[in-house]
Amino acid sequence: MSTIKDVAREAGVSIATVSRVINKSPKASQSAFEAVSRAMTKLGYRPNAAAKALVSQNTNTVGVLVSDVSDPFFGALVKSVDRIARKNGKHTLIGNGYHSAKEEKESIELLINNRCDALIIHSKGLTDEELIGYANEVKSLVIINRHIEKLEGRCVSLDNYKGSFLATEYLIRHGHRKIACVSSNHDIEDATERTRGYLAALKQHNIELPKSYVEYGSPDSEGGELAMSNLLTKSLDMTAIVAYNDNMAAGALAAANENGIAVPEQLSVVGFDDGLIARYVHPKLTTVRYPIEMMAEKAMNIALDLAKDNQPEPEPLRFSPTIVRRDSVVKITG
Amino acid sequence: MSTIKDVAREAGVSIATVSRVINKSPKASQSAFEAVSRAMTKLGYRPNAAAKALVSQNTNTVGVLVSDVSDPFFGALVKSVDRIARKNGKHTLIGNGYHSAKEEKESIELLINNRCDALIIHSKGLTDEELIGYANEVKSLVIINRHIEKLEGRCVSLDNYKGSFLATEYLIRHGHRKIACVSSNHDIEDATERTRGYLAALKQHNIELPKSYVEYGSPDSEGGELAMSNLLTKSLDMTAIVAYNDNMAAGALAAANENGIAVPEQLSVVGFDDGLIARYVHPKLTTVRYPIEMMAEKAMNIALDLAKDNQPEPEPLRFSPTIVRRDSVVKITG
Repeated sequence: MSTIKDVAREAGVSIATVSRVINKSPKASQSAFEAVSRAMTKLGYRPNAAAKALVSQNTNTVGVLVSDVSDPFFGALVKSVDRIARKNGKHTLIGNGYHSAKEEKESIELLINNRCDALIIHSKGLTDEELIGYANEVKSLVIINRHIEKLEGRCVSLDNYKGSFLATEYLIRHGHRKIACVSSNHDIEDATERTRGYLAALKQHNIELPKSYVEYGSPDSEGGELAMSNLLTKSLDMTAIVAYNDNMAAGALAAANENGIAVPEQLSVVGFDDGLIARYVHPKLTTVRYPIEMMAEKAMNIALDLAKDNQPEPEPLRFSPTIVRRDSVVKITG
Repeated sequence: MSTIKDVAREAGVSIATVSRVINKSPKASQSAFEAVSRAMTKLGYRPNAAAKALVSQNTNTVGVLVSDVSDPFFGALVKSVDRIARKNGKHTLIGNGYHSAKEEKESIELLINNRCDALIIHSKGLTDEELIGYANEVKSLVIINRHIEKLEGRCVSLDNYKGSFLATEYLIRHGHRKIACVSSNHDIEDATERTRGYLAALKQHNIELPKSYVEYGSPDSEGGELAMSNLLTKSLDMTAIVAYNDNMAAGALAAANENGIAVPEQLSVVGFDDGLIARYVHPKLTTVRYPIEMMAEKAMNIALDLAKDNQPEPEPLRFSPTIVRRDSVVKITG
């Protein structure tokens, strides 16, 4: 591949002149412009993004950190970021944090070193303080899915509490009172907030259940299967399940099926996320919509505004989940 | 954020000296090294990736083009590329082609302009000639999922023909003869090769079926549902379905379910891909494994070798699909 030096030699001008032509500097003369353009075409030279970036202080890349891009939830997040990036003529760098603080740090630092014009961070492992540190360093960094008071206006988040409250109340309105909860054992805000929402809805409707109605597992299908099995083992009298997410709900469906429990006839199930899985399991999952695409777009637009020193319009950055009705809940009487 | 100029001023040296220190050039004196390091620490300066790249001709990024990162199949591909990239201290840039030649071109050119150290291309829209053009320009470009003779050694692909042949033969060994095919209507090699494999297996076992046993749809759940409905509409006598991919198989399952046809009791179904969906649908899908992780790792390793002018070891780059047995096929007699 030819270099900027080759172009300069071919055009009979200095490297600085080639650089000026590439960057469309008004200092480049018309004759230099023509000579360099001819040389570039002849040599098949492509202006180097690194060379452009050095001059313009603009890399035209945006960075996004997610836990694992092969999880469709994060795939949807990255896709939304990429869609806005492309609209703005930018390219997307991704980092995978794999749920580990160490990996998240490494990824964020690589993205920062790449001078991304905007950074969207979905962190599970880092503390609020660590994220504040990075946010202070990079003005265009926006956090998705965590609300940090000191970063007002730079955190886009979901009201997880409200989501589980809605799911539980939806079951109560369908006549259920013996409602178990399949929770995540990850020590993050999402998990505690969702369990809190479930408990609050029960309380508001004067439903008292022993603690054994909450079971924990990893936030995936296997964890849901395990938590469901544990609930069944305890011989609990239950007619419905509120699950931490769709993956755990899918695991609970599998465990119910293996134990001859018909869903929704004998057991109603509500998920959380409304991801790809919700539409593929049988029965199709009634779930709580996590508007990750909308949230990712919002986060990205704020980050791009911050990068340009524009003040984003003040507006609520805490999104509300909603119920998506499908086939996994029935009304019961008595 | 402080710049290289600020560091130079603070350290009392030239910008060129700061650059030499950042790039660990032997030309930088020990005293310059110390002064610059002190200034960088004081100002919280991070060496700019663009600055490093210009000198080292090495951006430490790799690029990957997929159709749509929010599809778990491509998510798995990107994750594998990213895993190898990280092992090599590199970061991953993604491009989404969204099944369009125009978008694919745009993405590839952006990745090339970013001087990625390695490029993995999963193209659906571009012609072989167009891909050869890019491959000639970028020595570390490797194609995944297409075999182009002129790019011997730089194409990692799957034997799609064999995959559908295996799936069809698996059904035949289970006593099925009335086997319909739910095909993709996309005009790409994968689609034609898989249909060809299905037809060849029938022929080898002396099974003659009218053309109406093949129905087409978009390669997603909706397309599978539509193709399956069309097969049912034609009142075909069939006991099994070979689907283009798991998504179409999931759609076929949904259509069967809505029409009161029990799977696998009345209808056996085989998918293709062995993606996330295969384990979530009910019944769990017997399918053909597409070893996309292995293929992506191989492609990435070759690309990194080519980037370093190492000749990759000659070995077969055409991968073989295998059958994954789950719950969607039964043996029939008669």
